[in-house]
Amino acid sequence: AAPGGVSVSAVLPAGGSGERLGGATPKQFCDVQGRPLVSYAVRAMERISWISDIIVVVSPENIETMKTIIEKCGHKRVTVVEGGITRHRSIFNGLKVFAENEFSNRLLQKPEVVIIHDAVRPFVEEDIVSKVVMAAKEHGAAGAIRPLVSTVVASAADGCLDHSLERARYRASEMPQAFLFDIIYEAYQQCTDYDLDYGTECLHLALKYCKTNAKLVEGTADLWKVTYKRDLYAAESIIKENLSQQVCVITNGKETLAQVDFLLPESLKSQIKVEAISKSLSKNDSCLQNIISGQCYNFVCVNDKRCAIQETQELVDMLEKSNIPLLCPVVLISVHLDISEINSFSIGMEDLTTIKKFARETKKKNILVYGLLIQYK
Amino acid sequence: AAPGGVSVSAVLPAGGSGERLGGATPKQFCDVQGRPLVSYAVRAMERISWISDIIVVVSPENIETMKTIIEKCGHKRVTVVEGGITRHRSIFNGLKVFAENEFSNRLLQKPEVVIIHDAVRPFVEEDIVSKVVMAAKEHGAAGAIRPLVSTVVASAADGCLDHSLERARYRASEMPQAFLFDIIYEAYQQCTDYDLDYGTECLHLALKYCKTNAKLVEGTADLWKVTYKRDLYAAESIIKENLSQQVCVITNGKETLAQVDFLLPESLKSQIKVEAISKSLSKNDSCLQNIISGQCYNFVCVNDKRCAIQETQELVDMLEKSNIPLLCPVVLISVHLDISEINSFSIGMEDLTTIKKFARETKKKNILVYGLLIQYK
Repeated sequence: AAPGGVSVSAVLPAGGSGERLGGATPKQFCDVQGRPLVSYAVRAMERISWISDIIVVVSPENIETMKTIIEKCGHKRVTVVEGGITRHRSIFNGLKVFAENEFSNRLLQKPEVVIIHDAVRPFVEEDIVSKVVMAAKEHGAAGAIRPLVSTVVASAADGCLDHSLERARYRASEMPQAFLFDIIYEAYQQCTDYDLDYGTECLHLALKYCKTNAKLVEGTADLWKVTYKRDLYAAESIIKENLSQQVCVITNGKETLAQVDFLLPESLKSQIKVEAISKSLSKNDSCLQNIISGQCYNFVCVNDKRCAIQETQELVDMLEKSNIPLLCPVVLISVHLDISEINSFSIGMEDLTTIKKFARETKKKNILVYGLLIQYK
Repeated sequence: AAPGGVSVSAVLPAGGSGERLGGATPKQFCDVQGRPLVSYAVRAMERISWISDIIVVVSPENIETMKTIIEKCGHKRVTVVEGGITRHRSIFNGLKVFAENEFSNRLLQKPEVVIIHDAVRPFVEEDIVSKVVMAAKEHGAAGAIRPLVSTVVASAADGCLDHSLERARYRASEMPQAFLFDIIYEAYQQCTDYDLDYGTECLHLALKYCKTNAKLVEGTADLWKVTYKRDLYAAESIIKENLSQQVCVITNGKETLAQVDFLLPESLKSQIKVEAISKSLSKNDSCLQNIISGQCYNFVCVNDKRCAIQETQELVDMLEKSNIPLLCPVVLISVHLDISEINSFSIGMEDLTTIKKFARETKKKNILVYGLLIQYK
């Protein structure tokens, strides 16, 4: 349930032109490890179960692109809305979906609290979203802030320094922000065309038109916004790092594998976060389900019987159902540990041929299956 | 010569503890593609021929580390100075080297203009440094600025929004900055302990103590400061990209290679910046010298005679002398194009063995030589 029991939805403005990036593609649609940047922000919201609806606002020419992205990446609870020519006009359009009948085919349930988050901030965690929502419930408005990285200066008309701000007294306003829906919607209805055309700060509108002083919530370093090409590089490296951060080791729990069961996770732990599951202990599906819907893209299944294709198939089915492979390639290493007295090379090769054939099929679903045969006497 | 004919030196504060990075190593000493970050900033200054001295200010415990870095990376014109406990105290110490006899073994020539640049801004180009120096000569002080990426907010005592700044009226103050030496030195001598302990902005000191309104110079996007881990990732990606941006193709200019001379650079040009040199046209050493001391780390030498080891050796000597291989591995592909009527496999193999032996030696100098034999009838 949502923090404080309120109903919560989110609006993600994704209408920017990305001129600071210096490329033809707006940054929210730039490919980062096989997926457009906007999909990471959508996923970050989608992972939070208490967010009911996710409104993505894009410029008219990108509506089809965005719909295709949502389908390809298997995103749920997302509504695509046509944006205006400025950031504020786009956010306003996003909010109207909850309030004005003529604006949407189906009127979405108006939330008590609405989150506003940028499509180009891919790494927001549930914890900070939750804090901002709680603060918004209490204060009417709230936003994440970060310390300033550089001193801020004001220039005079002649292009010379007028004064510099004392860095400690100011903060950078980041996203996510959250508002009691009625407050931010009222602010947008009241505000001037000048605000809609030249303003950028939602907290400012809530203050100016609804006398609501937003609570400022100290954010984490990962809230930063992809603005320049270097930010795309950074996002790519962080995503790569996240992908290889966790592995799930699944053994069939039989006695013959007891040692592997213990030793493999132990030896992996020094390098990577390990989730170990011994399948026979319980029919551990909900546990595995949780791991799959988390950030785990790497699986090792260890078996001691010939041709464990059935168990691998089971895992592949679960993965497919989860839509996770639509987000990123999943690596699944199927290890057959043959400790029988008379292990035969030809039988082993036969097993590997089976798994090779199987892998060819799963590859189409973005699940990369590798077979490993270990014969040990 | 320096812009405006002034004498120029630079001070690089490198004393930060890097606490925002979340690692044990201060960020200026973090490895980026085989070299500590600070070395990139030093190199950026060192490449500018009209900067006389480069003062790197580090905390006492890192003096030996820094000296080792300078030796290993072959940096010239660098003096390492012990810093103070804050940024301003460190910069002040750096300036003292030019003004106070007791502070240094040898008193360095006091420059008319001093550049101050961060050790953690690796990508500064000569053009912006030159603009800032020119502006400092005219106005007494100057600094690079960038548009704000986020809105800046002021918080009230209760942690709520007090007001937000109009983004267009403010700028982020970046580096490099430059000052008439006498002005900034005077400012540091005048300023209070409070300034030295809690201030961070040199432009502010020049304004407060010398009534000098610094000229603000619009900087390029690459001036950004490495602050967080993601910035290290970004720096790494940019450096990798730069390394593979340019290739120098050297042919021996003989008629038999005329076609290669033309076609190879042409076909490479679609993917990479190509400098083509035909050695016989002139004894083109100064041209090659310039390419080497630029950002070029990739060389292709095409020859039509057997065993062109001598010419490869010549290039290796030049590279070694330039100290460039101390900064980054240099890749040198030696192509032997055998278009003789009777080309023999065994002779070709003999040549490759020679080059392999040669490559083993050059590898120790960080020059990676590859031999390629093309027999064509």
